[in-house]
Amino acid sequence: MSAHRLFALTPGEPAGIGPDLCLLLAREKQPEALVAIASRQLLAERAIQLGLDIELLSAEPGQWPDSPAAAGSLYVWDTPLAAQAEPGKLALANAGYVLETLTRAGQGCLNGTFAGMITAPVHKGVINEAGIAFSGHTEFLADLTHTEQVVMMLATRGLRVALVTTHLPLKDVAAAITAERLERVTRILYADLQSKFGIAKPRILVCGLNPHAGEGGHLGREEIEIIEPTLEHLRTEGMNLIGPLPADTLFTPKYLEHADAVLAMYHDQGLPVLKFKGFGAALNVTLGLPIIRTSVDHGTALDLAGTGRIDIGSLQVALETAYQMAASRTN
Amino acid sequence: MSAHRLFALTPGEPAGIGPDLCLLLAREKQPEALVAIASRQLLAERAIQLGLDIELLSAEPGQWPDSPAAAGSLYVWDTPLAAQAEPGKLALANAGYVLETLTRAGQGCLNGTFAGMITAPVHKGVINEAGIAFSGHTEFLADLTHTEQVVMMLATRGLRVALVTTHLPLKDVAAAITAERLERVTRILYADLQSKFGIAKPRILVCGLNPHAGEGGHLGREEIEIIEPTLEHLRTEGMNLIGPLPADTLFTPKYLEHADAVLAMYHDQGLPVLKFKGFGAALNVTLGLPIIRTSVDHGTALDLAGTGRIDIGSLQVALETAYQMAASRTN
Repeated sequence: MSAHRLFALTPGEPAGIGPDLCLLLAREKQPEALVAIASRQLLAERAIQLGLDIELLSAEPGQWPDSPAAAGSLYVWDTPLAAQAEPGKLALANAGYVLETLTRAGQGCLNGTFAGMITAPVHKGVINEAGIAFSGHTEFLADLTHTEQVVMMLATRGLRVALVTTHLPLKDVAAAITAERLERVTRILYADLQSKFGIAKPRILVCGLNPHAGEGGHLGREEIEIIEPTLEHLRTEGMNLIGPLPADTLFTPKYLEHADAVLAMYHDQGLPVLKFKGFGAALNVTLGLPIIRTSVDHGTALDLAGTGRIDIGSLQVALETAYQMAASRTN
Repeated sequence: MSAHRLFALTPGEPAGIGPDLCLLLAREKQPEALVAIASRQLLAERAIQLGLDIELLSAEPGQWPDSPAAAGSLYVWDTPLAAQAEPGKLALANAGYVLETLTRAGQGCLNGTFAGMITAPVHKGVINEAGIAFSGHTEFLADLTHTEQVVMMLATRGLRVALVTTHLPLKDVAAAITAERLERVTRILYADLQSKFGIAKPRILVCGLNPHAGEGGHLGREEIEIIEPTLEHLRTEGMNLIGPLPADTLFTPKYLEHADAVLAMYHDQGLPVLKFKGFGAALNVTLGLPIIRTSVDHGTALDLAGTGRIDIGSLQVALETAYQMAASRTN
């Protein structure tokens, strides 16, 4: 039997903790077949630095594993570096390498080789300094898959929070909450909860924009003028949308218990609770893509690369979630 | 010995759950002497409705208790209603009664009768409909005590969150974060943590305004132009201020462990985590007043008045905190 799916894991920035995470992870057996898309030499060197005895097995197009590697071993699709990678030392020359690993993973998802991809952190700064315009994994994968609109969702066990707006200065948030954007984001969230998370009738809690969800218009009118009419319109299509609710009421057990996801209007309304609840075990999911992509929720931690003093909790839930999504996928 | 301090408890709106909370609380003995400022008749009727056998003891100026009431009894400073109060039915005629209870409590704190006051919820709407301009407990007590600037802080066991701005539409928040306001609020928070919470050298974590605290100016410049210079200035006076930090990083154990309070820039940045962590056991403290005032963090819950299906957790931590503050008070 070969019921195993194949997943791609990109360790990201070679000077950061991504390679370390992959090696630490490989100490235990995964439930699905997993291929790290990275420099074999980098992983071998980092394993020595970490004092880890991990066997690096070869994988590549035409020679994919059909079952998980044993504990203590890791499949690697070798992708050569341009320059030696040292922990903590960013090298402009390796920017192209990082993007090549993402391209291989993304195209492999598109052509059906991989059931999903899981990404460790990249360093935006060094890629841009190397002369390549790059604003992040999400945008790169949206381009690669010709996707117009994606939605950022963070998750941890028991809570998922999607965002209507993401990396905007706070002063620009209110103006960005348009009926059109809210509708688009809600549709993507709803559709992906159905098609990638196997939830037949998702129940979504929607935050207001203003404190107390505007308190009947006394603390802002966006709820009345934009959010409520948009939700009402989408409800006529059968969507189960609760809100707009005050953010400090919504994030309590009474409401969260029966919710499949929370839709927050902006970054700092939704993510502090998510990170608080899911500390060390939160992940990022990009919704709206034609592929499954999850990610760790932390950065490259250059200062910790090669030290072994890192926690693989976020990578573990990112993998776990990608596996579950692939198993639940209906489209 | 009479080492007991005397505290005032205002049940607030007579048609809401405030009277119920006081009666449910009186089933157990308090560690300090506590006087409910309310209609004795109201409490007697509500006790019957709840099936509670609570003995109502008299207290008034000149006849204050010097020790806590026994379990099953409650000291009451009788303050007559203007009209019969029925659970769930707001009566315009009783608006004056509600304010009279607050005035008695506040003046008693000012003249040293009470070591602090603890407030159950009032109903702003009915007071305003009765023709009395009233925007909340906090503003009422600021007026009564001639206080120019107060600061709202919510707390639960293990976490305190103060706010630079409170009930503003989100679109107005960024413009309200001025150096002057930030400095005033920080000074009040710092001074009250010292003088009312007994913390000699408070350690305060300060949120940025923008996501990722502006990410070096890429996601907003208020951190660079306003927040950092203000904190730097206050640090020269010896204040221990950490930040500005991204809100979704700050609310994690690593940071919170050694913090005495968090200063959030706005309502929905700070309160969702506080309410999530402190569900059912959060309280509100008004800082900057010359008196100690704590409050429950919930509303009048008109539909639950008289039912007994309510949780006194928030009132309990509000009392506990007022007692601790009075014991720690240094000014």
